Amino acid sequence: GAEVFNCAAPDTGNMEVLHKYGTEAQKAQWLEPLLNGEIRSAYAMTEPGVASSDATNISTNAVLDGDEWVINGEKHWISGAGDPRCKIMIVMVKTSPNAPTHQQQSQILVPTSTPGVEMLRPMTVFGEDDAPHGHMHLRFNNVRVPKDNIILGEGRGFEISQGRLGPGRIHHCMRALGAAEKALQLLCERAVSRTAFGRPLAKLGGNVDIIANARMAIEMNRLLTLKTAWLMDNIDPKEARIWISMIKTTVPNAVLQIVDDAIQMFGGLGVSQDTPLAGMYKGLRTLRLADGPDAVHRMVVGRHELRKYMQADAPNATFRDG
Amino acid sequence: GAEVFNCAAPDTGNMEVLHKYGTEAQKAQWLEPLLNGEIRSAYAMTEPGVASSDATNISTNAVLDGDEWVINGEKHWISGAGDPRCKIMIVMVKTSPNAPTHQQQSQILVPTSTPGVEMLRPMTVFGEDDAPHGHMHLRFNNVRVPKDNIILGEGRGFEISQGRLGPGRIHHCMRALGAAEKALQLLCERAVSRTAFGRPLAKLGGNVDIIANARMAIEMNRLLTLKTAWLMDNIDPKEARIWISMIKTTVPNAVLQIVDDAIQMFGGLGVSQDTPLAGMYKGLRTLRLADGPDAVHRMVVGRHELRKYMQADAPNATFRDG
Amino acid sequence: GAEVFNCAAPDTGNMEVLHKYGTEAQKAQWLEPLLNGEIRSAYAMTEPGVASSDATNISTNAVLDGDEWVINGEKHWISGAGDPRCKIMIVMVKTSPNAPTHQQQSQILVPTSTPGVEMLRPMTVFGEDDAPHGHMHLRFNNVRVPKDNIILGEGRGFEISQGRLGPGRIHHCMRALGAAEKALQLLCERAVSRTAFGRPLAKLGGNVDIIANARMAIEMNRLLTLKTAWLMDNIDPKEARIWISMIKTTVPNAVLQIVDDAIQMFGGLGVSQDTPLAGMYKGLRTLRLADGPDAVHRMVVGRHELRKYMQADAPNATFRDG
Amino acid sequence: GAEVFNCAAPDTGNMEVLHKYGTEAQKAQWLEPLLNGEIRSAYAMTEPGVASSDATNISTNAVLDGDEWVINGEKHWISGAGDPRCKIMIVMVKTSPNAPTHQQQSQILVPTSTPGVEMLRPMTVFGEDDAPHGHMHLRFNNVRVPKDNIILGEGRGFEISQGRLGPGRIHHCMRALGAAEKALQLLCERAVSRTAFGRPLAKLGGNVDIIANARMAIEMNRLLTLKTAWLMDNIDPKEARIWISMIKTTVPNAVLQIVDDAIQMFGGLGVSQDTPLAGMYKGLRTLRLADGPDAVHRMVVGRHELRKYMQADAPNATFRDG
Ligand SMILES: Cc1cc2nc3c(=O)[nH]c(=O)nc-3n(C[C@H](O)[C@H](O)[C@H](O)COP(=O)(O)OP(=O)(O)OC[C@H]3O[C@@H](n4cnc5c(N)ncnc54)[C@H](O)[C@@H]3O)c2cc1C
Ligand SMILES: Cc1cc2nc3c(=O)[nH]c(=O)nc-3n(C[C@H](O)[C@H](O)[C@H](O)COP(=O)(O)OP(=O)(O)OC[C@H]3O[C@@H](n4cnc5c(N)ncnc54)[C@H](O)[C@@H]3O)c2cc1C
Ligand SMILES: Cc1cc2nc3c(=O)[nH]c(=O)nc-3n(C[C@H](O)[C@H](O)[C@H](O)COP(=O)(O)OP(=O)(O)OC[C@H]3O[C@@H](n4cnc5c(N)ncnc54)[C@H](O)[C@@H]3O)c2cc1C
Ligand SMILES: Cc1cc2nc3c(=O)[nH]c(=O)nc-3n(C[C@H](O)[C@H](O)[C@H](O)COP(=O)(O)OP(=O)(O)OC[C@H]3O[C@@H](n4cnc5c(N)ncnc54)[C@H](O)[C@@H]3O)c2cc1C
Repeated sequence: GAEVFNCAAPDTGNMEVLHKYGTEAQKAQWLEPLLNGEIRSAYAMTEPGVASSDATNISTNAVLDGDEWVINGEKHWISGAGDPRCKIMIVMVKTSPNAPTHQQQSQILVPTSTPGVEMLRPMTVFGEDDAPHGHMHLRFNNVRVPKDNIILGEGRGFEISQGRLGPGRIHHCMRALGAAEKALQLLCERAVSRTAFGRPLAKLGGNVDIIANARMAIEMNRLLTLKTAWLMDNIDPKEARIWISMIKTTVPNAVLQIVDDAIQMFGGLGVSQDTPLAGMYKGLRTLRLADGPDAVHRMVVGRHELRKYMQADAPNATFRDG
Repeated sequence: GAEVFNCAAPDTGNMEVLHKYGTEAQKAQWLEPLLNGEIRSAYAMTEPGVASSDATNISTNAVLDGDEWVINGEKHWISGAGDPRCKIMIVMVKTSPNAPTHQQQSQILVPTSTPGVEMLRPMTVFGEDDAPHGHMHLRFNNVRVPKDNIILGEGRGFEISQGRLGPGRIHHCMRALGAAEKALQLLCERAVSRTAFGRPLAKLGGNVDIIANARMAIEMNRLLTLKTAWLMDNIDPKEARIWISMIKTTVPNAVLQIVDDAIQMFGGLGVSQDTPLAGMYKGLRTLRLADGPDAVHRMVVGRHELRKYMQADAPNATFRDG
Repeated sequence: GAEVFNCAAPDTGNMEVLHKYGTEAQKAQWLEPLLNGEIRSAYAMTEPGVASSDATNISTNAVLDGDEWVINGEKHWISGAGDPRCKIMIVMVKTSPNAPTHQQQSQILVPTSTPGVEMLRPMTVFGEDDAPHGHMHLRFNNVRVPKDNIILGEGRGFEISQGRLGPGRIHHCMRALGAAEKALQLLCERAVSRTAFGRPLAKLGGNVDIIANARMAIEMNRLLTLKTAWLMDNIDPKEARIWISMIKTTVPNAVLQIVDDAIQMFGGLGVSQDTPLAGMYKGLRTLRLADGPDAVHRMVVGRHELRKYMQADAPNATFRDG
Repeated sequence: GAEVFNCAAPDTGNMEVLHKYGTEAQKAQWLEPLLNGEIRSAYAMTEPGVASSDATNISTNAVLDGDEWVINGEKHWISGAGDPRCKIMIVMVKTSPNAPTHQQQSQILVPTSTPGVEMLRPMTVFGEDDAPHGHMHLRFNNVRVPKDNIILGEGRGFEISQGRLGPGRIHHCMRALGAAEKALQLLCERAVSRTAFGRPLAKLGGNVDIIANARMAIEMNRLLTLKTAWLMDNIDPKEARIWISMIKTTVPNAVLQIVDDAIQMFGGLGVSQDTPLAGMYKGLRTLRLADGPDAVHRMVVGRHELRKYMQADAPNATFRDG
C-alpha cells in the first residue's frame, strides 16, 4: 500500500540526481547519509500559484546575493518534507528569467532547517495527510543558501529533470500492476465465494466479462511496461521517453478500473476498512496526477506520432517530475 | 456534502414506513418524536455474512417466545445507529423460514437501548467513519422486543420494502445531479483561470470535449430523473420502479465521471482539502453500492425489457433498500 | 431505412430557405414545383479541397460579370444531385473575399441544367452509391446564372445557414431514435429465441446489461431530443442551437452503439442481408459526419458552457449545414 | 484489404487439418492439389438454425448407410464455397447423437460437386457478396460420400477443431494490427495536412489524444499478439488457447476503434471510395463475430481466471472455428 502513495519516491530520485550531477562536496554532505539511511530528502517543484505540469511556469525565484542564493516563493505537495528525518530538499527555482525558456530554471539544495523555510500545512489526499511523511505546503521567505548549493550549474534545471524522469515512473507502473493483480485476486475470491440470486457472484450478469477484461488489461499493460524497462536499459533513453509516457498514461487508468471493479464486487466492504481496496484506489488515483497528469503524457505520445508526418514542429513539450 | 453521504437518508424512509404501515401505538411512540426531530432512527437490513443485495439472503432471525420476539444475528453498515440521538431501528429479520421465499421476512421495531443490542464498530468509507452519525456494525444477542413491535404483520417485510424504495432513490439522484453541477462549475472556473503550455487549460487537448460531455450527461440524466419523479407522483408506482432503477444506475455513474474529470482538471488540488471534490467522490462512489448496486438495477431494467418478448419469465428479481 | 441515409433531407431544408428568404419570383419558379413534388433539389456546400466543417473555408467563387454570376469550383457529397428529377441547387459560394470572415459567403440558385455544371461521379457510402439519388461530386466550370439568383443578398450566406440548421437535425435525431427502438427490438427477439451453452442468449454473460444500457440510452436521448424540439418551437432559437448540437452529438453515437450491439447479438446474420442492421449502421455512421461532425458540435457545446465563466471569448464557432 | 475479409482463411486451416489428421489417400487426393494451388477448399461448420458459436449445437447429420455417409442439413457463411475453383469442403456433422456431448461430431470430406450439394445463395457482408469467393448458404440433400471420407474417425470432430483454432486466429490478429497501422498513418497524414478553424486538424480538440490512444492500443495489442504467437510455438498449446482468446477479443475491438477514428478524421471521405477505411471497417467488424464472437472468447478468459479460485468447475466451454 505505502508505495503506491508515492511515499518512497523522492529519495531514490534525489540520490540519483546527486550521484549523477552532484559535486564531490555535495555528495559527501548529502548523498552519503541518504545512502546510509541516516536522513531523508524531498523534491520541491510544484507550486500552488501556477499549473505545474508545465514546468516553465515555475516562479519561485532565487537571486544571487554575494555568495548566497536568496530564495522566495511557495511550493506545495512536497512529499516527505513533513518527516522529521527529512534534512535536505532539492528545489526547482527560477534563476535566469531572461534566458531561453528552458534555461531559466536551476535546482538548488536547501537544508530543511535553513531559516526562512516555513512549513505551512500538510496537503491531504482524499482526507489523509500521510503523516508523518506528509505532502507539505511550504514557503521560502528570504531563504539563504551558499552559492555552491546549486546542482550542475545555472539554467540546467530542466536538464537534470530529464535525467530524473524515467526510472521512477517505471517503478510506479510496476507497483501499480502489482496492485492490479492483488485487486483481481480479491475480486475473484469474492466472486466465487459469495452467492446472490441463487448463483455465485461470478456467474451473475457481466461479471465474467469484467474478470476477463481485467486479465487482458493486466497482461497488455505488463508487456508494455516490460518493453519500456527494457528500452530504458538497452536503448536510447530518448526513445524510451515516449514509452514511459505511454505506460504513465495507460497503466494507472487500467489499474484504477480494476480496483474500481473489485470495490464494486465487494459491495459495501469494497469502500471499507475490511479490504485494502479503498486505500489502493486513493493511492492510484493520485498517480494520474503526480509525475505529470494523463493529458500531458498523452500529448507527448500524440505529438511524437505526428512528428513523423510533419516537416517542422513546435518545440518539444516540456513536462515534469514530482 | 453531507447528503451525498447518505446521512439524512434513513429517517425520512423510516418515517414514511411508520406513517404508511404503523399502528396507532407505533406512531405515537416513534413517529411523533421523529417528526419533532427529538430522536433519530436507523434501518437495519444489510448483513456481513450474506450478499445483501439479494434480500432473500437475510438471515438474522426472530423467533416468537411468548409475547416477545427473540432476535439473533449480525448487521453492518447501519447508518445513523452510531448517533446517540438514534433511539429506534427498523430491523429486517427472517420470521417464517418455511413460507414462500418472499414471505419469510418481517420488519420489527427495535429500540437501540434494548439489552443485547451490541455495537461492534463503525464501518469506514474511504477511511472515514462519518462519526457521530456512523455506519455501524452491530450484533443482536437474544434481543427481546414485544410481539407488537412487528410492522404490518408477519411475512410482510418485502411488501414494506417495496413501498420504501422509490422516493429515497430519486432524492439521492437529485442531490447527485446538484453535485455534478457544482463539480462542472468548479472545473470550468479552473479551466479558464489557469494556464499551461501557453494557453488556458480550457483550450488544451480534449478539455472542451470533456466539458461538453459533462453538460450533455447532466442534461440527459436530469431529464430522466424528472420524468421518473413525475411518474412516481402521477402514474403507476410499479411502472416507476423501472425508471427508478434506470436513474439509480445511470445518474451516479455519470456524476462520478464528472467529479473525476473535475479532480483531474484541478491537478493535485483535486484530491486535496482545498476542493470539495475528493469528498464528493467518496460520497457518490458509495451510491453505486448502497440502495442496490448498479448490477442489480441494470438486471431489473434489462429483465423488464426482455419480458415484453417472453411468454413466461422467472419470478421477479427482488432487491432491496438500505 | 431510406431516411437515415439522409435521402429526403435536402428538399425540406431547401423549401424552408426559399419560403423564408426567397423573392416572389424565386418562390414561383422553384418553391411551387418543389412543394408539388414535380422536381427535386440539392444543397451544395461541401468541397473536396477544404475542411468543410468550417464553412469559412468554402472556396468556390462567384464573380459578378454584368448581370450574371460566374461560378467556378468543385463540390462533393451533393445529395440528390444524381437524381434526374433534381432541377435546382442552392450553392454556397464565396462572393466577397474582402468582407469580414462571416460575410464573405452567399447562396445562389443554380439550375442543374446550366452549361458548365459537370457531374464528375457519385461518392459511395460504405460501397453504395445510393443511386439514383446519389451524393454527387461535381464541378462548376464558368457556370453563369442571372444576378437575381442570389438568395437574400450578397454576404448573407451564413445567416441563411443558421436558419436552416435546426429542424433538419432534430428530424435526423428523431429518425435515429426510431432506428434504435427497432434495433433493440430485434436484439431482444433474437436474445430470447436463440440458445447457446444451454441458455437463451438473453441470459448469457453481460447481455442483460447490454439491453438495460440500450433502454437507458434511448430514454435519455429521447428526452433530450424532445426538450430540444420544444425549445425550438417555443423559446429563443439561439438557445436551441446549443441543444441541437447536444443531440446531434449524443444521439447518433448512442444509437450506433445499440445497432452495433444488435449486430453482435445476431452473430453472422447481423452483418448480412437477413437483418436491416448493417444498413442501419451505414446510414447512422454518416450522421456522425454529415451536418457537422461530432467534434464540431461538441466544441459548440463546450464553448457555450465555458462562456459563462469567461469575460470575453473568441468569436462564435461557425459551422454548417449539409 | 482482401485478407481482413477472411478470404484466404479456410485453405490454410484445411491444409493443416489434412496434413495432421488425414490418411495417405486423403492427402494424395486433396492436400496435394491444394498445396499446388490447383484447387481451393471450404470449411463448413456454421448453421442458420442454431447458435453456432456453441459448436455442440451443430445439427447437420450424417448417417452411415452401407459404405457411405448420407448427409442432410443446412450451412451458411461457408467462405470460398462460391469460388468455381473450390472442389472440396470439410464439413462438421453430427454422427453420434448418443455419445457424450463433445464426441457426437465428426468432420467429413465432401467434394462440392457431389450430387445433393445445393448452393442456395451468397451471404452479404454490409451489402457485399465478396464474389467470386463468396460466403455461401448451402444445403445438403441426401449427399452421399464414401465412408473413408471421415477425418481421424467418428466422434473426433471437436478434437480436430481444437488443433485448427490457434494459428488462424493469430494470423487474423496480425493482419488486423497491420490494418491499424495503416489507418493510423492515414489519420495522421490527414490531420497534419487539413486545416479547420484556423489550425491543422491535428491541433483541434481531442485529436492528439485520439492519436496517442491509438498508438498505445497498437503497441499493447501487438505485444500481446507476439507473446501469444511465442507461446503457441514454444509452450503448451493448451495454455496458448487462453492467450488466443485474449487477442481474439481485444485486437479486433482496438483496431475497429482506430479505423473508426480515422473515418471520423477524414470527414465524408472516410466512408467513401477515396479511402480504404470503409472497407477495412467492414472486414474487421466481422472479425468480432467469425471464429467465435467476442463474448465467447471473453467467457473462456474469464472462466480460466476463475478456475484458479474454484475447487471444481463446470466442464470447459467449447467453442469453435469458422
Ligand atoms: C500525492 C502527491 C504527491 C506529490 N508529490 C510531489 C513532490 O514530492 N514534489 C513535487 O514537486 N510535486 C509533487 N506533487 C505534485 C504533482 O507533481 C502535481 O500535482 C502535478 O505535476 C500536476 O501539477 P498541478 O497540480 O499544478 O496541475 P496543473 O498543472 O494545474 O494541471 C492540472 C490539469 O490541467 C490539465 N492540463 C494540463 N496540461 C494539459 C495539456 N497539455 N492538455 C490537456 N490538459 C492539460 C489536466 O487536466 C491536468 O490534470 C505531488 C502530488 C500529489 C497528488
Ligand atoms: C455508506 C453506506 C451506507 C449504508 N447504509 C445502510 C443502512 O443504513 N442500512 C442498511 O441496511 N444497509 C446500508 N448499507 C449497505 C448497502 O445497502 C449494501 O452494501 C448494498 O445493498 C450491497 O450489499 P452488499 O454489500 O452485501 O453487497 P453484495 O450483495 O455482496 O453485492 C456485491 C456485488 O455483487 C455483484 N452482484 C450482486 N448481484 C448481482 C447481479 N444480479 N448481477 C451482477 N452482479 C451482481 C455486484 O458487483 C455487487 O456490487 C450502506 C452501505 C454503505 C456503503
Ligand atoms: C452521406 C453524406 C451526405 C452528404 N450530403 C451533403 C449535401 O447534400 N450537401 C453538402 O454540402 N454536403 C453533404 N455532405 C458533406 C458533409 O456535410 C461533410 O462531410 C461534413 O460537413 C464534414 O465535412 P468534411 O467532410 O469536409 O470534413 P472536415 O471538415 O475535413 O472534418 C473532418 C474531421 O476533422 C476533425 N475536426 C474538424 N473540426 C474539428 C474541431 N473543431 N475539433 C476537433 N476535430 C475537428 C473531425 O474529426 C472531423 O470529423 C454529405 C456527407 C455524407 C457522408
Ligand atoms: C464473413 C464471415 C465469414 C465466415 N466464414 C465461415 C466459414 O468459412 N465457415 C463457417 O463454418 N463459418 C463461417 N462464418 C460463421 C461464423 O463463424 C459465425 O457467424 C460465428 O461463429 C457465430 O455464430 P452465429 O452466427 O451462429 O452466432 P451465434 O452463435 O448465434 O451467436 C450470436 C451472439 O450470441 C451472443 N452469445 C453467444 N454466446 C454467448 C456467451 N457465452 N455469452 C454472451 N453472449 C453470447 C453473442 O452476442 C454472439 O455474438 C463466417 C462468418 C462471417 C461473418
